[in-house]
Amino acid sequence: MSQYRVLIDANDEKGLVHKVSTVFYQNNLNILSNSEFVDRENNKFFMRSVVEGDIALDKLYQLINEVMPQNANIEVIAPKNKNIVIMATKEMHALGDILIRHEAGELEANILAVISNYSDLESLVGKFNIPFIAISHVGLDRDEHENKILECMAEFNDIDYIVLAKYMRILTPKFIEVYENRLINIHHSFLPAFIGANPYKQAYERGVKIIGATSHFVNNNLDEGPIIAQEVIHVDHAYGWRDMQRSGKDVEKVVLSRALKLALEDRIFVYANKTVIF
Amino acid sequence: MSQYRVLIDANDEKGLVHKVSTVFYQNNLNILSNSEFVDRENNKFFMRSVVEGDIALDKLYQLINEVMPQNANIEVIAPKNKNIVIMATKEMHALGDILIRHEAGELEANILAVISNYSDLESLVGKFNIPFIAISHVGLDRDEHENKILECMAEFNDIDYIVLAKYMRILTPKFIEVYENRLINIHHSFLPAFIGANPYKQAYERGVKIIGATSHFVNNNLDEGPIIAQEVIHVDHAYGWRDMQRSGKDVEKVVLSRALKLALEDRIFVYANKTVIF
Amino acid sequence: MSQYRVLIDANDEKGLVHKVSTVFYQNNLNILSNSEFVDRENNKFFMRSVVEGDIALDKLYQLINEVMPQNANIEVIAPKNKNIVIMATKEMHALGDILIRHEAGELEANILAVISNYSDLESLVGKFNIPFIAISHVGLDRDEHENKILECMAEFNDIDYIVLAKYMRILTPKFIEVYENRLINIHHSFLPAFIGANPYKQAYERGVKIIGATSHFVNNNLDEGPIIAQEVIHVDHAYGWRDMQRSGKDVEKVVLSRALKLALEDRIFVYANKTVIF
Amino acid sequence: MSQYRVLIDANDEKGLVHKVSTVFYQNNLNILSNSEFVDRENNKFFMRSVVEGDIALDKLYQLINEVMPQNANIEVIAPKNKNIVIMATKEMHALGDILIRHEAGELEANILAVISNYSDLESLVGKFNIPFIAISHVGLDRDEHENKILECMAEFNDIDYIVLAKYMRILTPKFIEVYENRLINIHHSFLPAFIGANPYKQAYERGVKIIGATSHFVNNNLDEGPIIAQEVIHVDHAYGWRDMQRSGKDVEKVVLSRALKLALEDRIFVYANKTVIF
Repeated sequence: MSQYRVLIDANDEKGLVHKVSTVFYQNNLNILSNSEFVDRENNKFFMRSVVEGDIALDKLYQLINEVMPQNANIEVIAPKNKNIVIMATKEMHALGDILIRHEAGELEANILAVISNYSDLESLVGKFNIPFIAISHVGLDRDEHENKILECMAEFNDIDYIVLAKYMRILTPKFIEVYENRLINIHHSFLPAFIGANPYKQAYERGVKIIGATSHFVNNNLDEGPIIAQEVIHVDHAYGWRDMQRSGKDVEKVVLSRALKLALEDRIFVYANKTVIF
Repeated sequence: MSQYRVLIDANDEKGLVHKVSTVFYQNNLNILSNSEFVDRENNKFFMRSVVEGDIALDKLYQLINEVMPQNANIEVIAPKNKNIVIMATKEMHALGDILIRHEAGELEANILAVISNYSDLESLVGKFNIPFIAISHVGLDRDEHENKILECMAEFNDIDYIVLAKYMRILTPKFIEVYENRLINIHHSFLPAFIGANPYKQAYERGVKIIGATSHFVNNNLDEGPIIAQEVIHVDHAYGWRDMQRSGKDVEKVVLSRALKLALEDRIFVYANKTVIF
Repeated sequence: MSQYRVLIDANDEKGLVHKVSTVFYQNNLNILSNSEFVDRENNKFFMRSVVEGDIALDKLYQLINEVMPQNANIEVIAPKNKNIVIMATKEMHALGDILIRHEAGELEANILAVISNYSDLESLVGKFNIPFIAISHVGLDRDEHENKILECMAEFNDIDYIVLAKYMRILTPKFIEVYENRLINIHHSFLPAFIGANPYKQAYERGVKIIGATSHFVNNNLDEGPIIAQEVIHVDHAYGWRDMQRSGKDVEKVVLSRALKLALEDRIFVYANKTVIF
Repeated sequence: MSQYRVLIDANDEKGLVHKVSTVFYQNNLNILSNSEFVDRENNKFFMRSVVEGDIALDKLYQLINEVMPQNANIEVIAPKNKNIVIMATKEMHALGDILIRHEAGELEANILAVISNYSDLESLVGKFNIPFIAISHVGLDRDEHENKILECMAEFNDIDYIVLAKYMRILTPKFIEVYENRLINIHHSFLPAFIGANPYKQAYERGVKIIGATSHFVNNNLDEGPIIAQEVIHVDHAYGWRDMQRSGKDVEKVVLSRALKLALEDRIFVYANKTVIF
């Protein structure tokens, strides 16, 4: 018995569910879970099914492909650990949360390496027997620095996702393009409020009563990619901006780990700079 | 073009989605939304579809009935205002919230009447041109009082739901049986904590840091029916029990109105003393 | 026995608590609650005490004034219903929530009138025996329209607060200046995200996973005054912008009523475009 | 310049704030923060001040002691790392969160050791160079096992708090008495709902829509001590009990770390089986 995750998006038309479910039925597959959504404004259909049965992945893909319209995107995925690289700078909370979850066996992921532009985190990462690669940006311009990172990445096969666990440098469009929809960032603010540098200071100065964090895929513009997850906490006048920052860390790590889990479980569709999440 | 809500629950078996979606496809129905869930522990299948097309309700029911297994429960519903009766005692917040929503056209409901064992709320209800019926319990035993209410209810045709908007008397099993899965209660506590009288005082004495409210269908035991919605708020040591009660009212009205909306939109399945909500 | 709320803000210096508490002690006043906060960045001290005892308001004010530094702002307030005017446009939810709370005796307020630029809400307001005044903006420029509203306001004595319960027109600086720190607005967005028109559509297009509402005092710029209260709810891809709007209403009314209650209980200090709330 | 945390609780009477603030003023102490609360039902006064100035701890204690009533409890504390021992069983999430926070320098604590009745966590703890002590319960009755733990604890000087980070065995009253109000537990449920074993299964079977976790001091009865912090998350019908357990872990670790931080910063008063938290 094999288990597959089937992800389909297509322009909406009558009969899509019928056609896919007929494939499942005729091949004696058990549907473990099934989610559908139609964005009526964009006339777009999304479906994620988890099925179980006695069929090869290629065969299942082919059968679905035959009945779906040409415009459809179809993925049939056998669950297995995905390969991730984590990029970080100096802060420990978001990275540490992922390391502990990985150690506890909570993540469907192999952590290939942690790459940082500083070496502060080397000791933490080393504890977990995960390669730590420091690639300093000092004395390099942005392109040179990124090229060194890209070269380093190129030595790993099949990186499924790169997790920016408080990586504090802006990535260039060139870098982002290579890993489109595979770069998961945590932005230390409730986007789209307080885009840019030091959002906690901005939040403090605005006198907000709630702060938050946003995890999103990175697009050309660092703060404007498709949002995966957001969370908030209440604050009050007694919070200075450093207090907000401290409390914000707890939200940041929760939101990033939640987004990573959704990605690893193939639950996210990206379209129109937004996400559909099942 | 007609719109229907199709609700199906059945013992799970292969092909259920296939069979229903084939009916939709062959009859040229447009699927506006579609939700499924399989409770694998109880081997139970749930499906709610909203479809649009050119078919009579009876015909659609019949076609689905033909392809579904005998054990299936099938409902095909044309959206229309449901008939509700509200029961209350003296408190205004939960009732008032429903009245305002009704006045604003937010609820798919006709309010047939408000019944209370006191007359305190008569003035409020009267403002909205809704019949207010006081049925005092004074001098009556529980059965006599309930019989008077049941007689009163009997004069209305087709009551879809009875909303207990802080009705502070315990209902007997006899009453409950008549309106099984149609009695929506708001319990002023985060069930199953603080079952019974004065939960805010209980919560205060226990020193909890969160209080909440629970809306549920009423079963034999007043506080133990299937839960529809719950919500909470944070409190601290500065809240006396009356403060908790005051703050709790805001949660109570939100939760009751949310549960009522779910019921009016035919989004709730009840089974095994639990709910599946799409 | 009289009860007073004492509000003091001043440049911070040693001995402020000592001096005020000495006045309370020497005059045999009972401290029912006491809150202090020092904004260390701005070197600013805030204190709110509720005291009970046998002393005249003027006398208490004078005694505190004698011991406080010259720069201090001192208020001594005997709790009583405050006078409010509500401005609205067409939507019922925020206004309705205030009307029900007022009817239930939850608000320390007299509602002098509801003013709207349309007459849609006349029927609702009339039910509660509160004057409804329609002042249409049709055919008037902004100044002319506001002048008519100001004239109308001028006929009421002692307006403590004006509540903008989804009043959908922009107020001019001239109007705002008259009622500085007394205009309480509900902005249908989690400020500072989505400033301006149709924030729900903006939020939908950005694909956010959380929406919110903000209540704030109105300054020159409609969306940028001191924030009093904020709240959020989670949404997902299945929410179209109208769904967000519908769900947002529930947050809007909760947040506005919360802010109003804080104002009526004299719990808000305004400074540096922020609030301190005890 | 020294900084002190001053904690006072006493039967309420007029002049307490006056007397303490006079001591601060006369000794030229700067008040960095100041919180007071009077429980009017129990006539009990609580005060926590953080002060800064040029005075010895003993001297400050003595001066406050002189002006306070005999029934007062007075603590004057110089902030420094507290000594904690963590007890755990097999689960990694709550312990891991504390270890990462400790590593990041977020906690005012020295972790003296982690004690477990299994050795599963030895590898994790070892990474952080913290002593791991396995004390198996196999073949021992409860008293014998606890005696071994107590003997082990006795070798550490000055344990301020023992953190039960998912320690899954019930402690006897004898053990608890030794560390009264110093044993911080995380209960994997929103107390007082689902007291006892496997609360997630209980929650699943009850069909709740919210689950939570509670951190509390341990009293005689494991689940009934003073509550320090609680948090919740929403769940729905699609959550089996193992899903609830998995999601619950995220809440558990957040709540336990929050409670520990409050304790380490001397922000908690315990009385009447409740907490006052500043």
